[in-house]
Amino acid sequence: MQLENTESPFRTREQKAEERSAKRQAVLLAAVRMFNERGFHATLLDDVAASLGISKPTIYHYLGNKEQVLLECVAIGLEQFLDAVEEAHQAPGMGLDRLRHFLRRYAEINMDDFGRCVIRTGVEALSPEGAQSLRERKRRIDKAMRDLIEDGMADGSIARTDPKMLAFTVAGALNWPARWHAPGGELSAADIARQMVDILTEGLAPRT
Amino acid sequence: MQLENTESPFRTREQKAEERSAKRQAVLLAAVRMFNERGFHATLLDDVAASLGISKPTIYHYLGNKEQVLLECVAIGLEQFLDAVEEAHQAPGMGLDRLRHFLRRYAEINMDDFGRCVIRTGVEALSPEGAQSLRERKRRIDKAMRDLIEDGMADGSIARTDPKMLAFTVAGALNWPARWHAPGGELSAADIARQMVDILTEGLAPRT
Repeated sequence: MQLENTESPFRTREQKAEERSAKRQAVLLAAVRMFNERGFHATLLDDVAASLGISKPTIYHYLGNKEQVLLECVAIGLEQFLDAVEEAHQAPGMGLDRLRHFLRRYAEINMDDFGRCVIRTGVEALSPEGAQSLRERKRRIDKAMRDLIEDGMADGSIARTDPKMLAFTVAGALNWPARWHAPGGELSAADIARQMVDILTEGLAPRT
Repeated sequence: MQLENTESPFRTREQKAEERSAKRQAVLLAAVRMFNERGFHATLLDDVAASLGISKPTIYHYLGNKEQVLLECVAIGLEQFLDAVEEAHQAPGMGLDRLRHFLRRYAEINMDDFGRCVIRTGVEALSPEGAQSLRERKRRIDKAMRDLIEDGMADGSIARTDPKMLAFTVAGALNWPARWHAPGGELSAADIARQMVDILTEGLAPRT
């Protein structure tokens, strides 16, 4: 009798790579949730490992030490923000429409596990190299937001003001849910994102 | 020869109380700046003491342990926010004018030493009792902001939307400078506060 390929007790190289990647992802998700809940300092890799029924050396094997795990979580979050920039550039409409598209995604990512970790991670928690790397990538996102704002001012769909201050104001408003929004709250992240972006677009003063 | 009162080597009770208060203030200011710069965990009372040329037991004597020092800093910041609420209630004009008055002060305090510390202090850094006390007092400020918003909606000077979401949005925008504004930066805290509150009032979409 001949064994089918799928029944072989020996895994292919592909299967091994997939398994490795799935294990890394599981560790990163468990770690990022603990970082977000307890803070970086108060999180022990021992607890992350215990929550997955594995040992700390297993985490070292797949990802490295606690700072390396954090940097990997932050890298995933930053990638999501950069994807949102790409999406926004391809969205239809005027500059304001593209900015609104970006801001809604930006807010949603901020309320998700890895985006929340990007926002909550202060450079003071990291080594000088880690801090430098985080700063550079955050700067790319800030720059992208400012470009979208300037496009909208150029085509007249966004009111003229200091683009830098405008970027700080909207980013600040949309970063904040990373601190107060509890996953699984009454409103979905998408609802909160939409409402906040509408408020920022319309302003406090009534429009006549 | 009779000594003048001011020349007496013995200090009056009043003088002693003043001196004690001045010493406490000096410790609190040195501590809050170090908390803001390094984070609560990375700040050592030994370093705070060294920066003032005193010893750690002297800080214990005047204020207590590191968490007690932090709570005292937070209490001073919270007091400033509550004063701003009082001021706003007495400001002239419509609800929107009073809210704008409050938001400008709120932003300015956020960029000042003790307000910055209120914003930067996460409850996860504190003991359960400390966290509880911080949460309660932050809630009073949130409530006050929401009341001002509802007054403005009632008198028609603020556009109708969900008051809670509006409060989160403007508070988030104005909390954020506590994280990026460097004391002594190019723009004064008052200029930044004014510009941000104008942006929130007018909104991104041009007004015709």
